[in-house]
Amino acid sequence: PRSPRADAQSMAKQQREISVSEFFTKNRHLLGFDSPTKALLTTIKEAVDNSLDACEEAELLPELWVEVHPVAENRFRVVVEDNGPGIVRAQVPRIFGKLLYGSKFHRLRQSRGQQGIGISAAGMYGQLTTGKPIVIESRIGPEKPAHRFELVIDTLKNEPVIKKDTEVDWNMPHGTRVEIELEGVYKGGRHGPEAYLRQTALANPHVKLTYRGPKGEETMWERASQALPEPALEIKPHPYGVEVGMLLRMTKDTKCRQLRAFFKEEFSRVGPKAATAIVEGAGLGTATSPKRVTTEAAERLVKSIRETKIPAPPTNCLSPIGADRLEASLREQISSDFVTAVTRTPSVYRGNPFQIEVGLAYGGDQPAEELSSLFRFANRVPLQYQQGGCAITKSVLQTNWRAYGLQQSRGALPAGPLTLLVHIASVWVPFTSESKEAVASYDEIIKELKLALQVAGRQLGRFIRRGKREMDAERKRAYIEKYIPHIGIALQEILGLSEREEKRIVTTLTGTLERSRKM
Amino acid sequence: PRSPRADAQSMAKQQREISVSEFFTKNRHLLGFDSPTKALLTTIKEAVDNSLDACEEAELLPELWVEVHPVAENRFRVVVEDNGPGIVRAQVPRIFGKLLYGSKFHRLRQSRGQQGIGISAAGMYGQLTTGKPIVIESRIGPEKPAHRFELVIDTLKNEPVIKKDTEVDWNMPHGTRVEIELEGVYKGGRHGPEAYLRQTALANPHVKLTYRGPKGEETMWERASQALPEPALEIKPHPYGVEVGMLLRMTKDTKCRQLRAFFKEEFSRVGPKAATAIVEGAGLGTATSPKRVTTEAAERLVKSIRETKIPAPPTNCLSPIGADRLEASLREQISSDFVTAVTRTPSVYRGNPFQIEVGLAYGGDQPAEELSSLFRFANRVPLQYQQGGCAITKSVLQTNWRAYGLQQSRGALPAGPLTLLVHIASVWVPFTSESKEAVASYDEIIKELKLALQVAGRQLGRFIRRGKREMDAERKRAYIEKYIPHIGIALQEILGLSEREEKRIVTTLTGTLERSRKM
Repeated sequence: PRSPRADAQSMAKQQREISVSEFFTKNRHLLGFDSPTKALLTTIKEAVDNSLDACEEAELLPELWVEVHPVAENRFRVVVEDNGPGIVRAQVPRIFGKLLYGSKFHRLRQSRGQQGIGISAAGMYGQLTTGKPIVIESRIGPEKPAHRFELVIDTLKNEPVIKKDTEVDWNMPHGTRVEIELEGVYKGGRHGPEAYLRQTALANPHVKLTYRGPKGEETMWERASQALPEPALEIKPHPYGVEVGMLLRMTKDTKCRQLRAFFKEEFSRVGPKAATAIVEGAGLGTATSPKRVTTEAAERLVKSIRETKIPAPPTNCLSPIGADRLEASLREQISSDFVTAVTRTPSVYRGNPFQIEVGLAYGGDQPAEELSSLFRFANRVPLQYQQGGCAITKSVLQTNWRAYGLQQSRGALPAGPLTLLVHIASVWVPFTSESKEAVASYDEIIKELKLALQVAGRQLGRFIRRGKREMDAERKRAYIEKYIPHIGIALQEILGLSEREEKRIVTTLTGTLERSRKM
Repeated sequence: PRSPRADAQSMAKQQREISVSEFFTKNRHLLGFDSPTKALLTTIKEAVDNSLDACEEAELLPELWVEVHPVAENRFRVVVEDNGPGIVRAQVPRIFGKLLYGSKFHRLRQSRGQQGIGISAAGMYGQLTTGKPIVIESRIGPEKPAHRFELVIDTLKNEPVIKKDTEVDWNMPHGTRVEIELEGVYKGGRHGPEAYLRQTALANPHVKLTYRGPKGEETMWERASQALPEPALEIKPHPYGVEVGMLLRMTKDTKCRQLRAFFKEEFSRVGPKAATAIVEGAGLGTATSPKRVTTEAAERLVKSIRETKIPAPPTNCLSPIGADRLEASLREQISSDFVTAVTRTPSVYRGNPFQIEVGLAYGGDQPAEELSSLFRFANRVPLQYQQGGCAITKSVLQTNWRAYGLQQSRGALPAGPLTLLVHIASVWVPFTSESKEAVASYDEIIKELKLALQVAGRQLGRFIRRGKREMDAERKRAYIEKYIPHIGIALQEILGLSEREEKRIVTTLTGTLERSRKM
């Protein structure tokens, strides 16, 4: 059936709104659900990220139970339970049954989740592939009952539909338990759930994890540290990241009545002097009402901001892993002869503070003839897919590893017995898609990544060169030890020396050459 | 200021809805606006894609004018004008001032746009960075007036706000003109607007393009073909791509009153027999009302679908470039000694038909010592960014080019004087992000890509081997020509032959060796 020739009128009839859930149903690969293997991992990951964020925000040492139950061929029930603060009853349906809903999007604060999509998308994928609702149990304190919800998403409206809502008995004083049944394929290896959990334990030594796989096998990662990481603080936007449109909107939203106060209150690092300089630099009065800022005035203000000296954003909003802990983790997990780690000082992209850490482990039992292994982390979450599309990979490829004594083909990872671990911590990690598998290539981020890689690379280079020097020295010493005696014998024969004289000559020659070799 | 310790109650106060426009403002890199250079290109691209889609849908031979005007330092006004069908007045504000609105999302039909995000996102980026509205002029026919709108987006609500709405004089009988002022950086080269337009002309020979760059320089690409490509037809979903949740929703939405009719009407390629087989295979009656299908029945139906033999989806919904045209384009644009192209028969992922084409140009003036060039296209649109994260790149890297006579390092593109062009056409191209820069790695797509690359690769291999054989033969012939005369002279001296005898021996020897060489 041939489509009739369209015109503006017939085309207008086709134009309509697309709901967020429809959009992501069709574009499920954007959320990490493009294959049954990945879908299973993504489901676990979204639930675990949420649990860890909630525990840390409530300052509770996280303990998580992750279970993958086989239900039928290519069908699993994923259960993730935590000892977190729980979720108040009224919020459960929207948090788990509505895309783009949550607490983390509107704050500038380092957290694993940030978009308000992940867990409801996992529930939606389960619903799509099995028709089963997502099941949530949550309890916010020992004096309160535990609630159990069964939810589905109305994908046309992007709204939760409550199928069941009951009080249940639960032995936990507080916490949350999520259960999702989905079509999936279980695979081990680098991209599997167990590898994800192991890497999570690596970057989060304060977490206790218990995992029960589909064959009933149990693995437990005990806490390596009894202390929560320093809590990452929430910050206000930095003026250097603001643009005309955003500034205009902030002037309309603010409760401040004067421009000077507006800049002091709504931005980080703007003191009274800087606020005055910004406003006056734009030719405006400090008492001007923010509501009366026009597009043209906003343009002048943005220009004036860029000309005003303002300190870099505060960095206590970031919670890096730390070079010491990185080194310790690498030593523990990877066979090596040399380990080093770097934590860079924080930097800024689009007004957002971020911080890069690089660790590397060289030698040991690692295969000498293969490409290096690269482990990527963002806000302590392991990134297991889309390595090729990630700013971290790009930076590794663009670093000249030959300068540090490694083999490297153009456009490829360095080859050799090397594991690289790279971590980006930020109040807002710019991922290349909603599935949060790869970091976007902002220039500022690439620059910091390369600098961190170079620092670690130079240390590796020194180690490898020292090894080479020692090998060279060893070889020379071997020559001396091998040939001098023969020279002695030859001299003895030619000159008719006694055996004692010959020994003396050999010792003297050896000593002389050894000394010259060391110079 | 230390954040207070959170609990479920305090966390609940932070939880709220995130509007689609807020989401994409903060995640602008998902839409291709992560750097000023890319922002400029993306803006042009979104407008051009829309213009081409509209012209083709209305069966008008497209003619486009693209202009980039410098306004101030790092600020440009992009203008894209087309001779398309125009847009009815009532639809203009939503099409250009609301994300997730359009005509292409709900249809299964090959088109450049598919998500209803791009052009409004470009307008939103302009508004954010300059405060300026997007300006649209459109006219749907010579008897109608042209309308001019100035729009901004209310990002909190994701709704258009009309700033101006007037009738204007316009010399075009029908068409649309979009104007966006934005912060950007103009760069030429591989990732620049001109390269994008050149590649667009390469894959769309029926398009006439005029480009005026920021320095006033004009380039024109004339039509290489006066015929529109065969229009791609809209299709219904194929049953093999349906899942439990989607089937349940379709049974609720359908107007059919019996299950058998439902399968016949709502899906492609389901005839009366297959419809009966599906329904009865699930243990249901053919006259069952679709509205009464339960989750359990839907699961049985999906299982029954997978056990029923149903022909592959129709492929007249696809509009490939064609191997001949690909070869011709490559020959025209790239210096080479050998050109080949392959158009695979269509295949299916998740029920969506798609088709892979590969062209390659080898030799000529292309640099022999560098990595090959890879040009990627999706639905005739050049993909210029995120090469590393694309299924096309992945497939090229995983192809063993050594088998075809090229150098290739592990994890890298093949090296040599080679340009690869890969095109995927589909009713729904699965991109890795909303910016549509890279194709997601669905297994079925990777498989087809590799097969197409192998077919082209083998042809290249034959050419290279033939070249090698000829070079070997040439070298042997040179040896013969060089040494035989000396042998003749030596024999003459040793045996005291006459000059005539010597010549005869040389001729005989040469002939004998030539014949043996050819065997």
